[in-house]
Amino acid sequence: MTSKATRLYPLPPREITAEGGIYEDLELPPALPPARRGDSPPGSPRPYVIINMVASIDGRVAVGGKSSRLGSAVDRRTMRNLRSKADAVMIGAGTLRSERLSLDSDRTFGAAQPLAVIVTKTGDVPLESNLIGHERQRVLVLTTGVEGENGTSRSCGEARLLRAPTTPSGDADLGSALRILQTEHAVDILLVEGGPSLNHSLVSQNLADELFLTLAPKLLGGPQSAALALLEGSPLQSPRAELVSVYLSDGELYLRYRLR
Amino acid sequence: MTSKATRLYPLPPREITAEGGIYEDLELPPALPPARRGDSPPGSPRPYVIINMVASIDGRVAVGGKSSRLGSAVDRRTMRNLRSKADAVMIGAGTLRSERLSLDSDRTFGAAQPLAVIVTKTGDVPLESNLIGHERQRVLVLTTGVEGENGTSRSCGEARLLRAPTTPSGDADLGSALRILQTEHAVDILLVEGGPSLNHSLVSQNLADELFLTLAPKLLGGPQSAALALLEGSPLQSPRAELVSVYLSDGELYLRYRLR
Repeated sequence: MTSKATRLYPLPPREITAEGGIYEDLELPPALPPARRGDSPPGSPRPYVIINMVASIDGRVAVGGKSSRLGSAVDRRTMRNLRSKADAVMIGAGTLRSERLSLDSDRTFGAAQPLAVIVTKTGDVPLESNLIGHERQRVLVLTTGVEGENGTSRSCGEARLLRAPTTPSGDADLGSALRILQTEHAVDILLVEGGPSLNHSLVSQNLADELFLTLAPKLLGGPQSAALALLEGSPLQSPRAELVSVYLSDGELYLRYRLR
Repeated sequence: MTSKATRLYPLPPREITAEGGIYEDLELPPALPPARRGDSPPGSPRPYVIINMVASIDGRVAVGGKSSRLGSAVDRRTMRNLRSKADAVMIGAGTLRSERLSLDSDRTFGAAQPLAVIVTKTGDVPLESNLIGHERQRVLVLTTGVEGENGTSRSCGEARLLRAPTTPSGDADLGSALRILQTEHAVDILLVEGGPSLNHSLVSQNLADELFLTLAPKLLGGPQSAALALLEGSPLQSPRAELVSVYLSDGELYLRYRLR
């Protein structure tokens, strides 16, 4: 069966086959000159950062703790498709702990796999049990906890470790960590796939350039205490996003927003 | 300034002026014959129920406890526009307690105002302080608490009271209450504007026919404990919704879903 999708916006509408997912012809911006990147310290280069998530109409990003049950087959192909545009795919360790998942792109094209980056504060990173394909993918564990606080080495197997620099106040300096990803690991395009705390850290520090959101035509419900939203953290100061494009496939909306 | 909006879906796209909000030409289904309504007990008539909400991209339906800050001027006109199609506008008392609001439609047309229905379990309904225009609108307070448990009469002024019938297990029977609204108060079209618990009660009991969701192009963030979502309650059993139409105005998406 051939999957179809329609680009609704920008106009005019255009029907596409969605065999390979949405965004097959996506071209992300080339590395911007440092002066165009507004993060701190000003002028420093860093990867172009996109976030990709799937949510229900009622704003839930996981069903029973797992996001994998929420989207359609087209959404899953779109996810792999975005990975194939990225040099690295980043997730929070909490997301990895909650479900077995893979971070690879579509292998049928024989393309190089993106670097998998797992962000952890506690060091509890169940790579061998939960990261499908960890043995054939380069994996980097980015630790953001205080030195000596975590026991990362116990559970990360062959993965390389990168300790995030700290700010003068002692917090993890994500911006500096991203710059190291670019300069030492050749990550020009970074795809982030949650969870909510990692998304929030990047967005609130102006480190995320775009959000790709699949809106699944489902109402999940569930108590507030279990309601994982797209972002989790303090209220954001500059909440405005700019809608770039809208695709539709079988009731599922694929929304792309520019965040900066 | 003339506000513009584009219907993106169904195709072909069509540009409209949005002076009076989206859905100016909306025609809701006429009252269905009882046999077509699937609620319990089967075959009973009830109003056609639509829910209208505004949410941020990250699924929040309120900023600092207030939904009024989330949408644009076009969204607020759309809200009044939907009210003008309804015989009654229903909200939960918690929503009324959280902010001063009005439930009237656009008075410039001189149309009859919809009946305001406030649903309360506890009887704490601050009509006089928080319902703007309560003195010129018919108000009905629908109590769903156990008899004798609430002190509704103390705070509802001139409002009429309707005690929801109870199911054999002693819970409030919302379906029966809706049927009373139709038979005794001539409510054929009921518009519900939250909050999350009331939305959930209606959707989970198959008493909601459509959802109108405005997706504001904003990322709000905020801690999970303060994250009001569209629905709040137990996980839903049949979560699928059907996308009916998509409008776009200045980055704001107006989504219409059929729920049954």
